[in-house]
Amino acid sequence: MKPVSSGLQILLPCLLQVVLCQCNDTGSKPVKNIGVVLFPSFDVFDVFGSLEPLNLLSLQRQLNLYMIAATLDPVPTAPRAMNAYNSSFGQVIVPSHTFDSVARDHSIDLDMLLVPGGIGTRAPDLNSTIQFVADVFPRLQYLVAPCTGAGIAARAGVLDGRRATTNKRSWGATVAYGPRTYWVARARWVRDGHVFTGSGVTAAVDTVFAWIGHVWGEAAAADLALGIEYERHTDPSWDPFGEHYGLSDVPPLN
Amino acid sequence: MKPVSSGLQILLPCLLQVVLCQCNDTGSKPVKNIGVVLFPSFDVFDVFGSLEPLNLLSLQRQLNLYMIAATLDPVPTAPRAMNAYNSSFGQVIVPSHTFDSVARDHSIDLDMLLVPGGIGTRAPDLNSTIQFVADVFPRLQYLVAPCTGAGIAARAGVLDGRRATTNKRSWGATVAYGPRTYWVARARWVRDGHVFTGSGVTAAVDTVFAWIGHVWGEAAAADLALGIEYERHTDPSWDPFGEHYGLSDVPPLN
Repeated sequence: MKPVSSGLQILLPCLLQVVLCQCNDTGSKPVKNIGVVLFPSFDVFDVFGSLEPLNLLSLQRQLNLYMIAATLDPVPTAPRAMNAYNSSFGQVIVPSHTFDSVARDHSIDLDMLLVPGGIGTRAPDLNSTIQFVADVFPRLQYLVAPCTGAGIAARAGVLDGRRATTNKRSWGATVAYGPRTYWVARARWVRDGHVFTGSGVTAAVDTVFAWIGHVWGEAAAADLALGIEYERHTDPSWDPFGEHYGLSDVPPLN
Repeated sequence: MKPVSSGLQILLPCLLQVVLCQCNDTGSKPVKNIGVVLFPSFDVFDVFGSLEPLNLLSLQRQLNLYMIAATLDPVPTAPRAMNAYNSSFGQVIVPSHTFDSVARDHSIDLDMLLVPGGIGTRAPDLNSTIQFVADVFPRLQYLVAPCTGAGIAARAGVLDGRRATTNKRSWGATVAYGPRTYWVARARWVRDGHVFTGSGVTAAVDTVFAWIGHVWGEAAAADLALGIEYERHTDPSWDPFGEHYGLSDVPPLN
């Protein structure tokens, strides 16, 4: 049997590592692995507007990206409904992982999951996407759901008992998905604990910057914004669009 | 031989169509076909920030998109250089057409070509991309080159004798590509005739909105901005970033 001092010699570095790990960033372990949920007809700005500063940040610290979809087939952005004007206008994105593989493989230690919105959130076959969000949520440090991605988060149940916001043009349809959520009508974004929701489309950038500021500090966020020549909205209550549509808060149903 | 009146009956609708076509939009034929140049390590915001309002517009009028790359292989956004922090962080986009096929097939009647920037503009093997821009430019109604995409346009010779702007952090390296261009140091974007260039990264959205306003009118641009909850910069001389870096205009070399 080893003497106690020798046991401590072995244990101490581990304990130190645990303590350091817990103290890094905002008291949690360092954020490193970011997942993005992809589904047909997702909104490209929700995804790439959010990824732009993170692409830059990945050149300054270790970040790993998981582009996650139902299958590994490339994901089209064009609405599946017949285009009324006969437009042929869409982009196609290649996923790196499937919902199943990430949900099952707990060695994939996702720290943040980005859930975008888009026309595809209205599709009838969104169940696997919603289920994936519900499945991995307990493993996440952060969920970021801009635009109608908040509707997916609501349907996954992860906004229950929380304050949230969403796209102001799709307000009524989206808040109906979250009867146990307090929906804030005048907000560029809302943070409730480790869940960030954002207003419509371009609000995704301000939302992800708020998240970056929360995780890595405002100086890091400001430096990234300068790098992409972006004038941030730093006031979460700035929202001329909620005002434009004359929206009011929607409290949870009793 | 048909009588003259009968000939006119056949000719008139055609003449009318030509006249209507010429009068539409800004005196040119209607803008319908939009090409996007893709190359490894292009900037996702330059592409998808610009495409977001056009994706929406394609639901309101006929627009066709050509995602054009050297080959049909999916195009990665991650820098090819070894990531100093061991990040694995990139997205992969599927092109729809090749440079060769579009350059050769004149039945592909591109009205606008979007040339994005990004870290990939510094790659040593950008020749096919630059050559493609030079090849198709004479067939275009409009060229839109935000960020360091202006450097590609300059190297293709299409900014010679024009005023332009570009990314303010990459200013020196990019303006060096265009010794016959007047580079405007304090500009969110610059329009010179049918060529629009934009400042860095997020300026792409303001640049494409300026282009949309030019082609389809300010009301259409304002409606699309509302739809994506975007507060535009509508003053092309707004540029705190050119100011931040203390940049001055660079006139063409004699």
